[in-house]
Amino acid sequence: MPKITIEEFQEIARRSLTFMDSMGIHLEHIGTGEVTARARYDESFLRPGGTVSGPIMMGLADAAMYALVMSLIGPVELAVTTNLNINFLRKPLPGDIIATAKILKLGSRLAIGEVYIYSEGDEEQAPVAHATVTYSIPPRSL
Amino acid sequence: MPKITIEEFQEIARRSLTFMDSMGIHLEHIGTGEVTARARYDESFLRPGGTVSGPIMMGLADAAMYALVMSLIGPVELAVTTNLNINFLRKPLPGDIIATAKILKLGSRLAIGEVYIYSEGDEEQAPVAHATVTYSIPPRSL
Amino acid sequence: MPKITIEEFQEIARRSLTFMDSMGIHLEHIGTGEVTARARYDESFLRPGGTVSGPIMMGLADAAMYALVMSLIGPVELAVTTNLNINFLRKPLPGDIIATAKILKLGSRLAIGEVYIYSEGDEEQAPVAHATVTYSIPPRSL
Amino acid sequence: MPKITIEEFQEIARRSLTFMDSMGIHLEHIGTGEVTARARYDESFLRPGGTVSGPIMMGLADAAMYALVMSLIGPVELAVTTNLNINFLRKPLPGDIIATAKILKLGSRLAIGEVYIYSEGDEEQAPVAHATVTYSIPPRSL
Repeated sequence: MPKITIEEFQEIARRSLTFMDSMGIHLEHIGTGEVTARARYDESFLRPGGTVSGPIMMGLADAAMYALVMSLIGPVELAVTTNLNINFLRKPLPGDIIATAKILKLGSRLAIGEVYIYSEGDEEQAPVAHATVTYSIPPRSL
Repeated sequence: MPKITIEEFQEIARRSLTFMDSMGIHLEHIGTGEVTARARYDESFLRPGGTVSGPIMMGLADAAMYALVMSLIGPVELAVTTNLNINFLRKPLPGDIIATAKILKLGSRLAIGEVYIYSEGDEEQAPVAHATVTYSIPPRSL
Repeated sequence: MPKITIEEFQEIARRSLTFMDSMGIHLEHIGTGEVTARARYDESFLRPGGTVSGPIMMGLADAAMYALVMSLIGPVELAVTTNLNINFLRKPLPGDIIATAKILKLGSRLAIGEVYIYSEGDEEQAPVAHATVTYSIPPRSL
Repeated sequence: MPKITIEEFQEIARRSLTFMDSMGIHLEHIGTGEVTARARYDESFLRPGGTVSGPIMMGLADAAMYALVMSLIGPVELAVTTNLNINFLRKPLPGDIIATAKILKLGSRLAIGEVYIYSEGDEEQAPVAHATVTYSIPPRSL
């Protein structure tokens, strides 16, 4: 069972990832080490041609990884991103984009994961972006 | 002399980098291969503690590099980011953040640069983030 | 069918990736968009504790991606690496390491893929490293 | 004054970075937060055209950063690389390559730096590669 629910995550996000709301990002699914998140298509963040912009994709990757870390270790609000590497692969289709995150390593100090981003309706086919994200985890009182 | 002015860049950005406006990002200086850009402190994009969020820093790095490329090759609107790698180094101070971009390589197909981000009032001291950004440049009709 | 055989690749590698031989790296399997490569355990490249070093893992990731590109587009010897991002996840076990590469995007100018590296005997379990690698593909006479 | 001398570093490198020797890498200068390292031109690691290969550049960047960390915190042998991101910018000239490393952040748990690599005789001009490297620092007995 994941160590945090969608509702608990959204509550934390309202305080600590306020960009999620302004970027139209929300979680769709949280399992143990499995997260799906979505960024709604929003005209204020468009690229020419009506597709979502790079910062939305980066914000989505960051938020998905934050939720992934919490699915594994619980609501550790002070976890912070230390590195994000993203390759932009294809122009997204007009419409929402969807991210799935999976863990590569969960250590006591660092969590590293990868995030695939797809255009809605094109999942599991040609990713529009791929990111690896590292979070630093604060010392835990176990 | 830079191959684009701030005004020309802002005009392009209104069409092709619409996130700049929603993120409170604008150019402050453009020289040949030298760019300074700023993200205004905005409560809707805060991290806990009143500092700017990761996506703002990533958007700022991307926009500064886009302007840098245009300072060198002119208004090539179809240049697109292919890779962005960012290390988050320190929590920014509350307030604006400022980015300076410089070129590492300008080839016929790829432009690679690095961007340092500082808290306003702390420039040239301890960067809050450092990014390397790659743009793909479309074939040019010279 | 892959556009290059192991034998053809090894022939090219002898000329253009001479480090493969000095690093004890060779291909084990090449399919269309699927590559497995191995680095032999070699005492001259050890980290303390008898495990392979970072440069071997980076060389292995680079070589696996080079073979992957050729499996898709044929023996394009002048393809060059433009970016490599690697996360070191765990200390390898003493012994060989094995890389599997898969493509994220094959464009006309850039090929981007990801590489997982495992300790032999521990494949499909806990990767010791994960890399994303970008190759620039020269203009092709089609 | 740097917290380690070249001699002390080379002694540690013989045990813990054995690849340095096989790759012809050695330190040339160590100051506090300033390191210069060199990779000798070696025929067994060539790319076509007689230039040094990618793995040598990656090994050189890694070694320069390891020395940089020790110049700041002393001989902490158990520091390990967690991330390396490298952009290959130009084909090196035939001959040695030289790396200079500088720190971006020295924290209690992570050290992040950047490394510029030049062809000998072309320093301070057009870098052949640029890397950012993160080391994880073990808890210290202060």
